Order: sequence, then structure tokens, then C-alpha cells
Amino acid sequence: MSAYPQSVIKLINEFGKMPGIGQKTAERLACHILKQSVEEAMQLAYAVRDVKKLVKTCSFCFNISETEPCHICSDTSRDSSVICVVEQPADFLTIEKTGKYRGLYHILQGHISPLEGIHPESLTIEKLLQRVKADHVKEVLLATNLNMEGDTTALYIQKQLSAIGVRVTRLARGLPTGSYLEYANTAIVADAISGRSEMRG
Amino acid sequence: MSAYPQSVIKLINEFGKMPGIGQKTAERLACHILKQSVEEAMQLAYAVRDVKKLVKTCSFCFNISETEPCHICSDTSRDSSVICVVEQPADFLTIEKTGKYRGLYHILQGHISPLEGIHPESLTIEKLLQRVKADHVKEVLLATNLNMEGDTTALYIQKQLSAIGVRVTRLARGLPTGSYLEYANTAIVADAISGRSEMRG
Repeated sequence: MSAYPQSVIKLINEFGKMPGIGQKTAERLACHILKQSVEEAMQLAYAVRDVKKLVKTCSFCFNISETEPCHICSDTSRDSSVICVVEQPADFLTIEKTGKYRGLYHILQGHISPLEGIHPESLTIEKLLQRVKADHVKEVLLATNLNMEGDTTALYIQKQLSAIGVRVTRLARGLPTGSYLEYANTAIVADAISGRSEMRG
Repeated sequence: MSAYPQSVIKLINEFGKMPGIGQKTAERLACHILKQSVEEAMQLAYAVRDVKKLVKTCSFCFNISETEPCHICSDTSRDSSVICVVEQPADFLTIEKTGKYRGLYHILQGHISPLEGIHPESLTIEKLLQRVKADHVKEVLLATNLNMEGDTTALYIQKQLSAIGVRVTRLARGLPTGSYLEYANTAIVADAISGRSEMRG
């Protein structure tokens, strides 16, 4: 029997359900809520409520957004002839932070993984094909993760798009900046050799 | 400029205020909330609200409780002649889990620490003295932490109680079970020697 009051046990359980939060951390977080003033603690409750109330999925690119269409899809200064395809909203943010990309996005909401029961139909691939056909898209940059699932997904999409005749590109695969060859993984070095490019002085 | 919607940024900030939660973890937790159904996510919001609504401080022992007095203070099967003094509710739980203690508790709500601006008056020491005088307490077990602040606090309380003539005890200080002498800290071994007890076969 735990000696915590019932509502505290419930809160510990709720924190414990979150990714990377174990029993001890959940207890620590609950104790933090206990120590806070009602106003401070309720900020968290309100923030959760507001996110669930306000955040929707953009019906064009499937990114999370409080507006419809999202601020990217409605930004007329962006290059609508290029679509960058990513697995999830966090990946979109990674690309956006670089400041190197000025086109539109398409969020797949996952990757193809038959073992996890995720088939192409579970993703937003069909909607991507419709966008490419309807919106005169010239290039689709496949920015899925550089692992097996990401590569499988990129390959599947590339095959679907080949019939449409749009340019399909993939993020460069090579050695990350700052690498030492001595410590690099063989597969990564092999990729870097295959993908070698001309040096221009 | 962050590309997350406003309400998501607010949620990330709220998670980020919690102890041990950095920016990356806060983002991960917020993304988890985004992926959850409204019902699942609201469980967390409701749990926070319920804790702040239901959990009070017992006016006798200052432990967190949904009832007044708390379930320990109102349990007549417990030995009301002994009070175990701890710094915070989590410590109470640690003692309670051992199953070795059947008396009452008193939560100090912190420890004396002039550097942090925590003086004896900020704690519930005065209330403890009142309880000891009024309730015919025979023993006060000081279970503050075994560090400088905990020892200072215990010493202060012991001095206050000495005038009343109650038995004042402190948690045993020595080597933890499972220790190897070879690796033990000198101060800990010195404590274990000072506190040595008769072996009875």
C-alpha cells in the first residue's frame, strides 16, 4: 500500500505514462506540483487543455497548426514548387531551423513499417501524390530519417512519384561535419564515397 | 522564431519549468501530448487540477493528505507516544515503506539553512513542540537527512526538546548494508566506529 493520497497516486501514474519518465521521476514531478501554488500548477493543466483545444492538423501539409491552412502553407512568399517530405512535425522543425529551405512541407505522420503494422495507406502519401499532381510541383525532397524505415518510405514514395515525372531528391548521405575518419562507421564512410561530389575551388 | 504553434510553445515552457526537465525533454513530452487523444491528454490536466483541489496539509503533522486529520494521525492503532520527524512528505514515505515504524509523524516542510534563508521559524518546529507538550509524547525520532542541513536541523530541535524532558533519538549513522570496507568513505567508517554496538549471538 502506498501512503500517498489517491489524487497524488493518480498524478504520479499520469506522469509515469509519458515517454522516458520512470516511477522515481514521476514522483519527483508530482511532488513539484504539490509544492507549487495553485496558480503555477494550473498553468500546466491549462497548457495541456489549450494544446488539445487549439492545435489541429493542416489539411494541406498535415503539420500541427492553430490555423487552417498552417502558417507555412498560407505564406505566399514561400516557393510552392518544392515540397519537403518529413516523417513528423519535429522533423519539419529541424529542417526549418537551418534556414536553408524556402519551399513547402508534407508531414507523413510516420514511416512505413510492416512489422509495426504501418502500411503506406496509414500515412498521408496519397494526399502528397494529389498535391504534387494538382499544384504544379517541380521537386519533392524526401527528408525521411536515414534509417531502414525512412529509406523504405522514401523508396516507396519515389516509385509512386516516378510516374508523375516530378524531380525527386533525397537528403545527402555522408559524414557529418566535424567527423574524424578514424572513428567513422564503415557504412557511413561507404555512403560518403558513393555520394562523393566534385570539389570546386 | 520557433515554428511551433503558440500553445505548443507554452506547453513546452510549462514542462521545462519542472525539475530535471530540459528543453529537449520538454519538447518530447509536448509532442507526446500532441499525439495522444484528447481524452488521454486531459487525464494529465485533470490529475494536476485534482491534486491542487483535493490535497491539503494535515493540521497536526503537516503531511500531505486529502483528509483532515490525515490517515496516519487518525489511525488509532498507531502508537501516538512516538513522533518521527522528517523534512518532507517523500521522506515520510521512505520510513513508512520499511514497515518498521508504527508511531506518528511530523513533517518539518524543509530544513534549517541560513544560506537559503530558511530559519527555524519557516519550519513547523513550533507546532512540533506544542504537540510534544500536549500529547504526552515519550519519544521523538529525528529522521532528517544525514547531511549538514539535516544534522543542523536535528540538533536545533534536540535542544528545543531537551527542556521538555522527552526522549530524543536520531536515525543510526553507519555503513549501509552491502558495503565493502575497502571502498567506504573515511567519514562513514568513522561514524560506524563511533556508533558501534554490542553483538549478541
